[in-house]
Amino acid sequence: MNRVYNFSAGPSMLPLSVLEKAQAELLSYGTSGMSVMEMSHRSADFKPIIEGAEAALRQLMNIPSNYKVLFLQGGASTQFASVPMNLLRQSKRADYIISGQFSKKAYEEAKKYGDMAVAASSAGADPIFSTIPATTRASFRPDADYVHICYNNTIFGTKFPEIPDTGMIPLVADMSSCICSEPVDVSKFGMIYAGAQKNVAPAGVTIVIIREDLLGERDAKGKFVGTYVRPDTPAMLNYCQMANEDSMYNTPPCWCIYMAKLVFEWILDMGGLEEMKRRNEKKACLLYDYLDNQDYYIAPVESKCRSMMNVVFKTGNEDLDKKFASEAAAAGLKNLKGHRSVGGMRASIYNAMPYEGVEALVAFMKRFAEENPKD
Amino acid sequence: MNRVYNFSAGPSMLPLSVLEKAQAELLSYGTSGMSVMEMSHRSADFKPIIEGAEAALRQLMNIPSNYKVLFLQGGASTQFASVPMNLLRQSKRADYIISGQFSKKAYEEAKKYGDMAVAASSAGADPIFSTIPATTRASFRPDADYVHICYNNTIFGTKFPEIPDTGMIPLVADMSSCICSEPVDVSKFGMIYAGAQKNVAPAGVTIVIIREDLLGERDAKGKFVGTYVRPDTPAMLNYCQMANEDSMYNTPPCWCIYMAKLVFEWILDMGGLEEMKRRNEKKACLLYDYLDNQDYYIAPVESKCRSMMNVVFKTGNEDLDKKFASEAAAAGLKNLKGHRSVGGMRASIYNAMPYEGVEALVAFMKRFAEENPKD
Repeated sequence: MNRVYNFSAGPSMLPLSVLEKAQAELLSYGTSGMSVMEMSHRSADFKPIIEGAEAALRQLMNIPSNYKVLFLQGGASTQFASVPMNLLRQSKRADYIISGQFSKKAYEEAKKYGDMAVAASSAGADPIFSTIPATTRASFRPDADYVHICYNNTIFGTKFPEIPDTGMIPLVADMSSCICSEPVDVSKFGMIYAGAQKNVAPAGVTIVIIREDLLGERDAKGKFVGTYVRPDTPAMLNYCQMANEDSMYNTPPCWCIYMAKLVFEWILDMGGLEEMKRRNEKKACLLYDYLDNQDYYIAPVESKCRSMMNVVFKTGNEDLDKKFASEAAAAGLKNLKGHRSVGGMRASIYNAMPYEGVEALVAFMKRFAEENPKD
Repeated sequence: MNRVYNFSAGPSMLPLSVLEKAQAELLSYGTSGMSVMEMSHRSADFKPIIEGAEAALRQLMNIPSNYKVLFLQGGASTQFASVPMNLLRQSKRADYIISGQFSKKAYEEAKKYGDMAVAASSAGADPIFSTIPATTRASFRPDADYVHICYNNTIFGTKFPEIPDTGMIPLVADMSSCICSEPVDVSKFGMIYAGAQKNVAPAGVTIVIIREDLLGERDAKGKFVGTYVRPDTPAMLNYCQMANEDSMYNTPPCWCIYMAKLVFEWILDMGGLEEMKRRNEKKACLLYDYLDNQDYYIAPVESKCRSMMNVVFKTGNEDLDKKFASEAAAAGLKNLKGHRSVGGMRASIYNAMPYEGVEALVAFMKRFAEENPKD
């Protein structure tokens, strides 16, 4: 086995010890006599897995008891529709902060279901989306049913420097590329969602953390009746239905939930999100410090909006960028090519990327700069 | 490792050799230096996996070239909404044959989007759904946009004895619990879909096979413009969008697609669907022949509608049924309890269940009948 440092933006690296555990118990999990991939989702064997995944995530993120945790399918892109279908409660209006491609996609999708407005945008920044637009409470329509943000922007390497103040309006955040990378005050959000394939698990499971009052009333048995859900919402996109069935309205993506549990436990074993943040900062600082103290590579993102997870840079010469990505891959540093919409390079250094991987990258960057002087 | 015979209705057994291969390459796939779970879905490493899965499935099922193959998320339950959202082309009417719980769920979901009718139902059979209702062309509204069936009914152990003749009306079939179990003439269907977790892969990927004309017109670049798609269809449920992006509108469930590829290749290596059918018939005959030649267990399904995949039976005494499932589990024959809605027992004997597993089950059934005489 000859493992590389994989800087992919997602799906991306998983902790080696987690992969080794999954490998060891792949043919037979515990005393079950079967693989987790073969388990009935309603069996006594699987129950502790999905419940354990939720418990570990609740502990890790310190999720208040008035929030539901759901394990869904379809990635963040499905949430782009589910959010307005479920959360347009009164005015059928919502406000979006546009800070990159995914928040823009979320906004475009939501327009199918109500009156959507752009509260702020960094599309006009130079270069595009190299910063996070500032907002105040006055930026939002007072009767908006929610405000939507993408907390960390994978493609452009930015992150909200602070949580926007939306007053009483529930804040909904796509945290696909930063969930579990550092502590976050869940109580400041109405809802958090994340495709798991960047920081948590293989592609195929989406985490939704939602404040219960946003799901509306309950019946005598404590089940949500779907007060606010748009009537033509597909059952699978209906948060009330999913909450009522503990994410088991149909067969959930069991293997991905199992992998998420292993990753959550790996973080807990390490010391939780405070320790994860310390490690992630150390990695990101190594890279940003280098970038700030040389003049070969250009780092376009405004300092205070820099992402700890996705570090973008370029040489300023497309041919050199190509050469960089290709020679880096040959040196065991894979997937450093920037997103096709922006070019350049992007180093995604999620939780599972070891410090040694970033050291190896910086060493490569220095060598490449020496060996490839610009005209 | 002490593996059991797992008779779960789904998720269910996977071929041991497939699991062993997945285990062997879990930490590093080929020369990639990473797990398939860590691969960027747009990387050169993953491309041959998703393309290979499609090619193997096309070969296996002999899928005509005018059909698209999609790998989606959300299970058959998501398709219950996607089908009407995409396929109500003209009259906005569709007809459903109700042969069990899942066809009923599909019908109920579809009613959100158009004028749905029950063309035939076996809900009134005694016992309920123990047969497949007969239909002729006259059973369907001439202007129906499609007819929907559930080809194999997991819970009730029935299968359509023949493909209903719907004339010119496209036939849509949920094949979640029988796909790849025997050859099927794809050209007789407008669309086939299947959650993978019974016969194909771990839960998390859904296969859609759809005739291209049902997707409507194309633009100059050959992309589907979405002629018939309901305007408020979530992008992730839009077949045209998914077909235009080769199932990569967002990150697909890569690991499940990889596992599906391994299973398809396992079937091809074995001789394809003809050979698979021979093996499945041999297993099912062993069980049904035993059931037909004793009087301890009751097999409620009408002979000509018997499923090759899900064999239901009961003792006629609920306490004995419970004892059966529990003692069978202790003997290494797990998950034989019938669905909670019908009780009794159910032996799901999908492709990956070896003949020896069914032999062991029949031996256990004989022993149990001897040891537990009815009053």
